[in-house]
Amino acid sequence: MDIFDSLKFDTNGLIAAIAQDIQTGQVLMIAYMNKETLAETLQTGIMVYWSRSRKKRWLKGETSGNVQTVKEVYRDCDGDALLFKVQQKGVACHEGYKSCFSRMLVDNTWKIVSDKNGPAANQ
Amino acid sequence: MDIFDSLKFDTNGLIAAIAQDIQTGQVLMIAYMNKETLAETLQTGIMVYWSRSRKKRWLKGETSGNVQTVKEVYRDCDGDALLFKVQQKGVACHEGYKSCFSRMLVDNTWKIVSDKNGPAANQ
Repeated sequence: MDIFDSLKFDTNGLIAAIAQDIQTGQVLMIAYMNKETLAETLQTGIMVYWSRSRKKRWLKGETSGNVQTVKEVYRDCDGDALLFKVQQKGVACHEGYKSCFSRMLVDNTWKIVSDKNGPAANQ
Repeated sequence: MDIFDSLKFDTNGLIAAIAQDIQTGQVLMIAYMNKETLAETLQTGIMVYWSRSRKKRWLKGETSGNVQTVKEVYRDCDGDALLFKVQQKGVACHEGYKSCFSRMLVDNTWKIVSDKNGPAANQ
């Protein structure tokens, strides 16, 4: 696909991928994709990342069932980052929060501001 | 500051920093910070990145005047990414669009979906 021509993969062959809830606008997580997992994501419509820590393909929600369905895809101006607007099944964070960005800087400490049973308190 | 203890900077000393418009929820851009520019950002309340291409401190809006004022700061569950909710003066993108994510994947091509005079068409 020639849409890859305008993308820049880093020296590790990766590109940043931000997942945003299409309904609430909440930023859910950021992870990385290589060409293969990006191609799979675009073909299947389900978010598949490349795990930098495990060094392997990472189908988000493969074990938890909390898959992310792709609704819209954007690239940034210099082509080194992607933004996916997704429909999140269940929660995005392995800690049980809707978003991985559940800790807010408050009085010089990281404070949990998400509710495990609902959206972040600030949403 | 001990809030740095729970953050993971990569082998280049950088951490991903996503900027999101606090009013519209629009994801504006992603760039990177090192410890020094993160500390400066937290101290001044104005977004300061590390430019990977120019290898130098990058005060966003230094020449354009389109600075980003920090309103809220979040870290993700594994501490290797930050989310800043900001107030964007003018536009975030050097191409004149509000967001750097102005190109949407439509019919296997990247199509500009932002209006230079307003928010993205899909917002």
